[in-house]
Amino acid sequence: MEFPSKLIENAVGELAKLPGIGKKTALRLALHLLKAETETTSNLAEALAKMRFDITYCQTCHNISDTEQCSICANKLRDHATICVVSDIRDVIAIENTGQYQGTYHVLGGVISPIEGIGPGDLHIDTLLERVTSPGSEVQEVILAISPTMEGDTTAFYLSRKLRDQEGVNISTIARGIPVGGELEYADEITLGRSIVERQRQVR
Amino acid sequence: MEFPSKLIENAVGELAKLPGIGKKTALRLALHLLKAETETTSNLAEALAKMRFDITYCQTCHNISDTEQCSICANKLRDHATICVVSDIRDVIAIENTGQYQGTYHVLGGVISPIEGIGPGDLHIDTLLERVTSPGSEVQEVILAISPTMEGDTTAFYLSRKLRDQEGVNISTIARGIPVGGELEYADEITLGRSIVERQRQVR
Repeated sequence: MEFPSKLIENAVGELAKLPGIGKKTALRLALHLLKAETETTSNLAEALAKMRFDITYCQTCHNISDTEQCSICANKLRDHATICVVSDIRDVIAIENTGQYQGTYHVLGGVISPIEGIGPGDLHIDTLLERVTSPGSEVQEVILAISPTMEGDTTAFYLSRKLRDQEGVNISTIARGIPVGGELEYADEITLGRSIVERQRQVR
Repeated sequence: MEFPSKLIENAVGELAKLPGIGKKTALRLALHLLKAETETTSNLAEALAKMRFDITYCQTCHNISDTEQCSICANKLRDHATICVVSDIRDVIAIENTGQYQGTYHVLGGVISPIEGIGPGDLHIDTLLERVTSPGSEVQEVILAISPTMEGDTTAFYLSRKLRDQEGVNISTIARGIPVGGELEYADEITLGRSIVERQRQVR
């Protein structure tokens, strides 16, 4: 693609580096910004730079935070005996949006993936073990809420091996089964099979 | 959606203002930038701001340009007797990429759309008429290469009414028909009908 201006070529090139955005979409976005008020662009550029350079991470759970401790870890009303282990900050936001969880989190920052060269040492696993095993730790349950992909299952297996000798700490995983509103006939066999084996008794 | 940080909330909010990008995609982009090198973000922010604030438009054809005259209008080798009228800069790039056109362009900056409150006065129509009708004009053909939507056809009709009394200037539109590689059975009736009425004699 040839561009009539170096400036637009640069902007399109940078936009196209974002995941899921190709050259054509990048051009559409650039032309949208050119048509819109100048503030739209300056606000966007400023917000992005500010986010990247000023953001800090919670020293306890590695969640994104504006302070040293994130609002969840700092909240005395939450259940600090339960840690929900997730791979990504997005998962924290997703679980928080359900409004069903009152414990704390631990963000690994990815999953173990030998293909991409990510080993246990590249993730925030040390700090998780420290939170669980340090003397005086109040942790009673670790929930492994990691996506059931090959890499996710490997990570969950690694963590449960590391944690299983810790007395007084239960390890659990999030329930697998048919999604609410999902149709039985479209569910894959493994999910459907597990949802029958791990069927739940109805409360009368 | 609740965010753990004001900084990320702002960035997601600004990204989600872009066309075709919702809150979830915006969050994915923001988290991608957080994981990537800081330069990725600073380069992107800089390129966007530079594009928006430093860009200029060609004074002749309103194409994007780094100089007062765009590289196409300034090119003496191109056919300045032919003007291809398009609604958008994207169309210039698309036609240039075909390598089939040697004339100049005129970018209207949109199409006439009463619903969106865009009248002929909001488009670069005056300057087009001036280019065609000014004494000493060398223009011999105006190609109306405007998308065949309702608004596009209205705009083309308006322009051809304005230009038809100009002696020595031919008005043409881009050919309509079955796209190369397109299947006859999937073509809509109007396109197929027009492609039969306006059939082209084969050159032996």
